[in-house]
Amino acid sequence: MADESKAESAEQELIARYFKPLAMHPGAFGLVDDAAAIAPPAGCDLVLKTDGVIAGVHFFPEDPPDTVAKKVLRMNLSDLAAKGAKPFGFLLALALPQGIGEAWLKPFARGLGEDAELFGCPLFGGDTDHTPGPISVSVAAFGTVPHGKMVRRAGAKPGDRVVVTGTIGDAALGLKLRLDPATARRWGIGRDHQEHLKARYLVPQPRNAIAEALRAHVSAAMDVSDGLAGDLAKLCRASGVAARIECARVPLSDAARATLAKEPALIETIVSGGDDYEVLATVAPVQVEPLRRAAAAAGVALTEIGEVTAGAGEAQFIGADGKPLALARPAFSHF
Amino acid sequence: MADESKAESAEQELIARYFKPLAMHPGAFGLVDDAAAIAPPAGCDLVLKTDGVIAGVHFFPEDPPDTVAKKVLRMNLSDLAAKGAKPFGFLLALALPQGIGEAWLKPFARGLGEDAELFGCPLFGGDTDHTPGPISVSVAAFGTVPHGKMVRRAGAKPGDRVVVTGTIGDAALGLKLRLDPATARRWGIGRDHQEHLKARYLVPQPRNAIAEALRAHVSAAMDVSDGLAGDLAKLCRASGVAARIECARVPLSDAARATLAKEPALIETIVSGGDDYEVLATVAPVQVEPLRRAAAAAGVALTEIGEVTAGAGEAQFIGADGKPLALARPAFSHF
Repeated sequence: MADESKAESAEQELIARYFKPLAMHPGAFGLVDDAAAIAPPAGCDLVLKTDGVIAGVHFFPEDPPDTVAKKVLRMNLSDLAAKGAKPFGFLLALALPQGIGEAWLKPFARGLGEDAELFGCPLFGGDTDHTPGPISVSVAAFGTVPHGKMVRRAGAKPGDRVVVTGTIGDAALGLKLRLDPATARRWGIGRDHQEHLKARYLVPQPRNAIAEALRAHVSAAMDVSDGLAGDLAKLCRASGVAARIECARVPLSDAARATLAKEPALIETIVSGGDDYEVLATVAPVQVEPLRRAAAAAGVALTEIGEVTAGAGEAQFIGADGKPLALARPAFSHF
Repeated sequence: MADESKAESAEQELIARYFKPLAMHPGAFGLVDDAAAIAPPAGCDLVLKTDGVIAGVHFFPEDPPDTVAKKVLRMNLSDLAAKGAKPFGFLLALALPQGIGEAWLKPFARGLGEDAELFGCPLFGGDTDHTPGPISVSVAAFGTVPHGKMVRRAGAKPGDRVVVTGTIGDAALGLKLRLDPATARRWGIGRDHQEHLKARYLVPQPRNAIAEALRAHVSAAMDVSDGLAGDLAKLCRASGVAARIECARVPLSDAARATLAKEPALIETIVSGGDDYEVLATVAPVQVEPLRRAAAAAGVALTEIGEVTAGAGEAQFIGADGKPLALARPAFSHF
C-alpha cells in the first residue's frame, strides 16, 4: 500500500509523450486537462462499450506490445462494428507492473496509434496506475449511430437466415498452438497454416467496414468473441428464438480446414472457442442478397450458416453425421 | 493462460442479478445487449473521465466492498464536479481474482447502486474478467455540460483568487493511520478524530452540488486527487501562471487541525498527500462572493487560500514561518 498511488512523473511524461499524438480530437484537449468533452454528431447516439485484456489471461506476457494494443482496441471496435456504429474515439485505462517502461510503452503506443488512425478512433483520455498484478489494459470505446439505430441482439425472427463474416475458429486453434507447440505436429499442418492461426489469435480483424450495411439489412447482430455457439445462443435468448446451424457451412480458413481434416473433434473448438471477432447476424431472407453485395463491396466475406427457428434460446449445431453436436462448454454471457 | 478467458456463467448470472438494477437508463438495454446507446441532451457535450482502483494500491483488500464501489465511482464523480459537469452515467470494468464471489459482489453492487441513485449516475454497461492479480475496478464516467462549457484547467489569470472546497489533508492523514495504527498514539488524537480521518480516506465526498456554480463563476478548476500542491502546480502550468498559497488558510477539519498541532511537519502530508477529492478553483476577485454564496446554498464549504500570480507553473505554499515550504514530493501529472 503506497502513499503514492499514481505513477511518478517520469513515467507520466513518457506516457504524455507517446499517447498525446493519439489524442487528435480537439475535445481531448491534448490530454492536458482532467477530462475530455465531446459530442456525437447531431442526430446520433453514442454507442458505448468497454472491454479489456490482462496479461496471462487474454494475451501472453511475451506478446509484442503493439499487438496487445491492437487486440484490445479491436476487441472493442468489433463490438462497435456489430452494433452498426462508426468508431468515434476511446478512453484507455492502463495498469502497469513496476518495470514496465519505455521499452514496452513505446511499441504499445505505436500499435495503438496505428489502429487509432486506421479505424478513425482517436484517444479521448486515459488513466494509468501501477499494479502489483499483471499488465492490464481496459478500453472504453465510443461509436456513433443515427439516433435509435444501434443494431440490437434482440430482433431475430423465425425464418431469418444466420450469417457470419470472415472465418470462424482460427483464433481458438491459434491459442491451442500457442499453449502447446507440439500440437502442430499432431495436426500435421505446415508453418504457413500455423502462422495464420496464431496471427488470428494475436490481432483480430474487426469488421467495421460493414457497420452501415448491418444497420441497413440485419434483424439482429453481435460480435463473436466468446465462441460462435455461445454467442449465437445469447442472441437467440435475447430475441426469443432458436437457431439451427450446419457445421459444414461454418466458414473456415484453409488452415482451420486442414486442421479439422486431421482432427474432426476440433469442430467443437472451432464453434465454441473464443476470440473470433467476426460479426454474427440474422437477416430476413429478402435482405440476404443486398447484405452480401454490400459486404462484398466492403471486402468482407459473408457466409450463410443456418436459420432462425421458433424456440427459446437453443442454438443447435448439426454435425457431419447429421446429429446436433453436444457442446461441453457452457454458453456464458458477458456482463 | 486459460482457454476460457471470461468468467463462467454462474458468476455472470450473479453479476447480471446484482448490476442489472443499476442499469436504469433505457440506453443500457438492461445489460442484455453488447453495448449501450446514449445521447447527451441537445446542446450538451459529454464530459469523459476514466479512473480506477486496485486492491493494495488505492484501497486495502480488507476494505468493505461497498466503500470500494463508492470510492471508485466518487473519484470519477469528483472530476465531473470540478469540470462543471452533471453526472450522466458510467461504464464499469471489473477484474476479479478467483474466489471473489457473491460475498464481495453483493455489497459492492449495493454500494455502487446507492451512489448511482444518490448522484443520478446510472450504470450504462460493463465488463468483467478473472485476473491472477488483485481486485481491480475501473470506471469510465460521463457527465454533461452545455456545449463548450466544460470548466478547464487552463484559464487562471494573475490576480484570480485560489479557492478550495471542504477540507484538505484528511484522507492522507487517514491513510497514515491505516498504514500504522501506532501513529494515532504519537499524534495523540482521540477515536472520533481518527475515525473522521480514516473515513475520509475510505469514501470521498465529491462536490457535484456546485458543478453549475463552478461553470458560472470560476476561471479554471480541477479536482484535488493527487495532493493540493501538485494539483495546483498542474493547474498553474496549464494556465501559464503561478500561485501563492498561505498554508494557514488551507481549510482543515478539527481532526487534521488537532493532528497538525501535535506534529507541525505534517503540513507537508496535508498539502501534498492525495485522495482529497475536493475542488480547487481559481476565481476572478469579483466572482468570489457570488461563488461563495452559490456554494453555501449548495451546502459546500469554500475557502480562499491564496492568489494567482504571474509565473510559469510554480505553486508556492507559504508556511507558518513566512517561508515557502520545500515539498519533497514531486508534482506529478495524470495521464
